[in-house]
Amino acid sequence: MNTRDIALAVFRTSLASADPAGAVRNHMTLSGEILKVGPEFFPLQALRHILVVGAGKASAAMAWACEELLGERIHKGLVLTKDGHAPTSGKGGKIRVLEGAHPIPDERCLSGTQELLSILSEATEEDLVICLISGGGSALLEDLPEEITLSDLAAVTDFLLRCGAPIQEINVVRKHLSRVKGGQLLRHMQGAAVVSLVISDVIGAPLSAIASGPTVPDPSTFQEATDILMRYCGGEKSDIPPAIVSYFEKGIRGNVLETLKEGDPALSRSRTLVIAGNRSAADAAIKACLQQGISPVLLTAYLEGEAREAGKMFAAIAREIRATGNPSPVPCCMVASGETTVTVKGKGLGGRNQELALSAAMAMDGLPDVLLLAGATDGSDGPTDAAGAIASGDTIRRARAQGMNPREYLDQNDAYHFFDNLGDLIRTGPTGTNVNDLYLLFCM
Amino acid sequence: MNTRDIALAVFRTSLASADPAGAVRNHMTLSGEILKVGPEFFPLQALRHILVVGAGKASAAMAWACEELLGERIHKGLVLTKDGHAPTSGKGGKIRVLEGAHPIPDERCLSGTQELLSILSEATEEDLVICLISGGGSALLEDLPEEITLSDLAAVTDFLLRCGAPIQEINVVRKHLSRVKGGQLLRHMQGAAVVSLVISDVIGAPLSAIASGPTVPDPSTFQEATDILMRYCGGEKSDIPPAIVSYFEKGIRGNVLETLKEGDPALSRSRTLVIAGNRSAADAAIKACLQQGISPVLLTAYLEGEAREAGKMFAAIAREIRATGNPSPVPCCMVASGETTVTVKGKGLGGRNQELALSAAMAMDGLPDVLLLAGATDGSDGPTDAAGAIASGDTIRRARAQGMNPREYLDQNDAYHFFDNLGDLIRTGPTGTNVNDLYLLFCM
Repeated sequence: MNTRDIALAVFRTSLASADPAGAVRNHMTLSGEILKVGPEFFPLQALRHILVVGAGKASAAMAWACEELLGERIHKGLVLTKDGHAPTSGKGGKIRVLEGAHPIPDERCLSGTQELLSILSEATEEDLVICLISGGGSALLEDLPEEITLSDLAAVTDFLLRCGAPIQEINVVRKHLSRVKGGQLLRHMQGAAVVSLVISDVIGAPLSAIASGPTVPDPSTFQEATDILMRYCGGEKSDIPPAIVSYFEKGIRGNVLETLKEGDPALSRSRTLVIAGNRSAADAAIKACLQQGISPVLLTAYLEGEAREAGKMFAAIAREIRATGNPSPVPCCMVASGETTVTVKGKGLGGRNQELALSAAMAMDGLPDVLLLAGATDGSDGPTDAAGAIASGDTIRRARAQGMNPREYLDQNDAYHFFDNLGDLIRTGPTGTNVNDLYLLFCM
Repeated sequence: MNTRDIALAVFRTSLASADPAGAVRNHMTLSGEILKVGPEFFPLQALRHILVVGAGKASAAMAWACEELLGERIHKGLVLTKDGHAPTSGKGGKIRVLEGAHPIPDERCLSGTQELLSILSEATEEDLVICLISGGGSALLEDLPEEITLSDLAAVTDFLLRCGAPIQEINVVRKHLSRVKGGQLLRHMQGAAVVSLVISDVIGAPLSAIASGPTVPDPSTFQEATDILMRYCGGEKSDIPPAIVSYFEKGIRGNVLETLKEGDPALSRSRTLVIAGNRSAADAAIKACLQQGISPVLLTAYLEGEAREAGKMFAAIAREIRATGNPSPVPCCMVASGETTVTVKGKGLGGRNQELALSAAMAMDGLPDVLLLAGATDGSDGPTDAAGAIASGDTIRRARAQGMNPREYLDQNDAYHFFDNLGDLIRTGPTGTNVNDLYLLFCM
């Protein structure tokens, strides 16, 4: 195989490791009448009911793997997924699948969540609840306090986005406008054993951030949520829906429940497993490299920052490998995962991985036997039909031979057309999962 | 020693390796009457004269090391250095030191170069010429064609800078407006043996780029120089000094000599040694880490890009090391060298290394036992009196305790005051050398 084929094969192996149904199968097995979920054993005869609930873009596929394994042993189930993510036919079973709007929740999300809570209302200490959590769950699973409306929630979210608030701060506010986020779903379990299977779309897989962590403790407080709002509105409360201001005041006074905190008894029978995420995707890539006889080096699973700058860093490492065999002798593959961002200034078409690859190609120009693959694990890199692109030391020469000026394509954020012309886009189609992006730098 | 002291000690060792006089001593020795320069031996009795010439900010210090070693054995010498870089007293000897303007050459550079050429005019095949080259030499060593003036040169340089031309393209133009750059100094050697000792301030140490490569071949042509000018002026020749347009036309017609090309006989007795550069600085850091029992990993000696983005990359690697011991188990030090840039948007005070460190500190917040040192080897990071700064997982907590908002300091490009308040600036004073920047990421 040439390097390009190897790179694509490694990427595909990595995607397969993040497949929602496959990830559930890898972490949940049945031996006779013993259900094993991660390190925990549940003898089925000791359980009264198994309930399956969940929310997220991957929840329908995860639910299907549960059906396959447990079938009639499931008492009831309901998962909430994004429009277009429910199976269209042939997968009916014990677990219902309802769709809702994403990323802005709609009434269907609220009513679906009420149905989910009504299933959980049947749970007792003799039951097992399996929670299937993935990216997008934050919008899909929502139970608002009586005095807060969907439009209040949309208004405050929009306000914070316009102020440039980081997502972490927006989530602190949103968790405190919810009765299920920030661990609060556990308040509906009546002492049942709970296992949450999580597919992480957040770098570092901080559990409280994935789908707003419905089954894990949350350290943030009503006071912090209020401080964030006040900071961005400059104390001008009229920018904030009044119902939110007064609800947070009640929260600070202790008149409504806080998000679930460490030490809460509701946590005592709850366990959370990250069954796929950008780390496991990188790990799968590493194993695939080893099978190809290529030395893998895990550089980082925390890559963030401006896409084109990250591209330069990969090129700088490629240059060093070619010059001195550091940090690894060839043949090697630097493996990284994470998710970069693009500050759009031009009018072209592209995605963060395509832009990273274009920038790397420019900085690797002329370097022999190097190849960088940058790809989105959900198959969708920015507003394009590509997952990413492949850059090599030869990319720029080939582009110039076609009359393309790489600098102009980069300046226009037009990496899509650049790589499309070269035939170097990666197109996987929608993968049904999302564990951020993967970067594979091969030096052969 | 604590990590901070270790980091500073490693940085100082690295600086010492780049000291101009020390670097000359490391690469040029006398055994009896045999002069060894790098891998070459010169029996002194076989030489008629030793001539020493040079140009660059470090050339006076390099010349002093030659004087120390060879003393009266030097027949004549002259080096050109930047204002304020000549020794003030006590170092008189065979090698004269003249000062000139930098970065824009003045008449003193031209007249000094004429004196230097007149010394070289004495060279014969029985002589050895030692050339001492370092950053800044491009401005200091200049012999213009008769029809080109200093103001023509300044005008075209200014024009290209305003057009945003990369330094590589500006240098192609400048080499073709010179009779000493691009290897052409070798045309003044009359067949003498030539050894060039080079201190590199250019990433990757491409010899033709350091001080415009007066003693190494140059691949660029009058046609390319003309194409660059025409591209930026859009064919509007009135933007270019007319003397330059007509000189380049003569060059294309072959009526004036090209820069020196590979295969030119003038190269046959010439050898070039890079005696210090950002790679040797990184190598010295690696040795110093090993002596401290810390595993070093050379990440890259080619680091470039936006400073704050590079800071995020170091933080991403620090997080991985803490999480999984990849790419190296602790205690380890990721060593890198290169030079980043800052896109200034705020009104604060800072330098590229300080800004990189601030960005890294924000992205490493709370991470235990990690420390990043980023420092300029010339001791001068941006328009500040600091060489760089030290960031750790504790930096942000300490800054907040002092009432500082790190994000505001970064937004204002005000890393200097941020780290000054914390006592975390590195101040070395001017080091008399420049081999770009060094980055040391310790995870203990």
